[in-house]
Amino acid sequence: MKPNARITFQRVPQGLPVVEDFGADVAEVPTAGEGQFLSKTLYLSLDPYYRNVMKGSQIYADRLRAGDVMVGETVAKVIESRHPQFQPGDFVAVRNGWQEYALSDGQGVRKVDANLAPVSTALGVLGMPGLTGYAGTVFLAQPLPGQTFVVSAATGPVGSTAGQVARHMGARVVGIAGSDDKCEFAVRELGFDACINYKREDLASALKEACPRGIDAYFDNVGGSTLEAVLGRLALGARIVLCGMIGAYSMDQMPHGPWLGPVVGARATMKGLVVYDHMDKMAEMTRVLSGWIAAGSFRYREDISEGLASAPEAFCRLMRGENFGKALVRVGA
Amino acid sequence: MKPNARITFQRVPQGLPVVEDFGADVAEVPTAGEGQFLSKTLYLSLDPYYRNVMKGSQIYADRLRAGDVMVGETVAKVIESRHPQFQPGDFVAVRNGWQEYALSDGQGVRKVDANLAPVSTALGVLGMPGLTGYAGTVFLAQPLPGQTFVVSAATGPVGSTAGQVARHMGARVVGIAGSDDKCEFAVRELGFDACINYKREDLASALKEACPRGIDAYFDNVGGSTLEAVLGRLALGARIVLCGMIGAYSMDQMPHGPWLGPVVGARATMKGLVVYDHMDKMAEMTRVLSGWIAAGSFRYREDISEGLASAPEAFCRLMRGENFGKALVRVGA
Repeated sequence: MKPNARITFQRVPQGLPVVEDFGADVAEVPTAGEGQFLSKTLYLSLDPYYRNVMKGSQIYADRLRAGDVMVGETVAKVIESRHPQFQPGDFVAVRNGWQEYALSDGQGVRKVDANLAPVSTALGVLGMPGLTGYAGTVFLAQPLPGQTFVVSAATGPVGSTAGQVARHMGARVVGIAGSDDKCEFAVRELGFDACINYKREDLASALKEACPRGIDAYFDNVGGSTLEAVLGRLALGARIVLCGMIGAYSMDQMPHGPWLGPVVGARATMKGLVVYDHMDKMAEMTRVLSGWIAAGSFRYREDISEGLASAPEAFCRLMRGENFGKALVRVGA
Repeated sequence: MKPNARITFQRVPQGLPVVEDFGADVAEVPTAGEGQFLSKTLYLSLDPYYRNVMKGSQIYADRLRAGDVMVGETVAKVIESRHPQFQPGDFVAVRNGWQEYALSDGQGVRKVDANLAPVSTALGVLGMPGLTGYAGTVFLAQPLPGQTFVVSAATGPVGSTAGQVARHMGARVVGIAGSDDKCEFAVRELGFDACINYKREDLASALKEACPRGIDAYFDNVGGSTLEAVLGRLALGARIVLCGMIGAYSMDQMPHGPWLGPVVGARATMKGLVVYDHMDKMAEMTRVLSGWIAAGSFRYREDISEGLASAPEAFCRLMRGENFGKALVRVGA
């Protein structure tokens, strides 16, 4: 038997997840049937929304029972195929979950072009997080040249994409992040005009200083008190893209939201963003961002853990905000 | 001396306003100077936003000090004029405030056509409240035929206009109001498909029953727990117009808002509405609504208090939600 190491869902976390919420086992590597292919996982993507899946939130298709393999996006290499559109050697973005090998019928699988950029980016800036940041900025937030664009979780794959896209659209970009290192990265590497360390500075005062003419567009990845502080500085006609509320994913009772009076005063628009609505823009996003990557005007950072066994702890770190860049697990080579 | 009775601002209310927050005095009726006209107040409009003006909210131009005449919209009759565009006998919508007579330089004054409808409607469905309901529904909420449109404070001038405009646009209209009488009025007179008495029914369950396919558009006049309940029933792509938050006007600390997760899940859009942005649509709104009024397909209700001295108590009733229809004070004839 050829072993297939797997990480399983064990139980619904209480608050922030801990490694004991996960299990591990070893199964046999399966064989591709007619219309299937077998792929070997290279990188596993760690994403905050898994925390919502783990509590059975109704907005996701996946339902996990104890012992099920954890769901998740991966980049994998096809090693055996009885599917006409996939050949051994192909790189694919596929939902293999937290395991070394998996079968697929090709549904929802994207081929990954290894010539554009390292294949791991298909899980980050050239994948769903990148599409989230791209579509939310280009189609919803719509910053105009000279306008002030603010983004939270600024060095993550969504936030760094949103901010750099806004910069390429001519906006003044202000990031919000959780450490001086992240802020320095946002300004020096990502080209943001400013970045606020919300853990060290008073966010309301810092936003006032960094956004003297108010905030025209805000890409919200966190919700909570950060969103509330931003609402206090809205410019007339501001657009707010509601994308993630990581702080709430680990809560059982949903928290209150911000006082919405400023939305009325600013004649602002708040829009909910779910990336699946924008899948038709994946090719466009990949073309645009990979062009900027090649030209050196778009950067990204990855936070890679080594080995599938490190995935639970790496996910817990992500949920505590301790990652720096797109959280990935290197599962195989 | 010809006496001009006036109601004055006395102090910032603590919570819900009480009559002791107002004062009264008698001044001399002034004389029109060059470029001015003098008008006699016929109706004073009572509007919840006055409560915000009384606490010095920064979104209004008016600043009140103790002893100042209370600000407010009125319908008045020109009785003396040295202004080329206004003649004695003209009816005007003018911000005379809470007093029997006032001067105006014509700035921001609208002439009122007494042939279209009773002149009092220039403060209600054919005035700023009507424009609020009209513009918010036609340009922001944009209900489509067959969609479900929900409006709170459904029998007030804003809500009854919004709901009836949505009905004329082909939507299914569900009102939310605070008494069985109001709900009966909404269904029988305003032609709403249903109306929920939020004081008697559990709003979340009642909305589920009244809106089996979800809520496509919501015109929010109240904020608070009503808004939160509506968010729990949003249809995909829902539009929410944030217009008034009457419950909060009487609070010193702004309350929290609703949990915004459903806005993301529904890919909804929330838009802040300030009627002053839509003044250019006043003529269009007046033409459309007065046509419907003449045809009998648009109705309204007024809640008229007799005499200027009754204004403070009538305003306090309005802020307690005890009015039924557009709150007006008959000041003169």
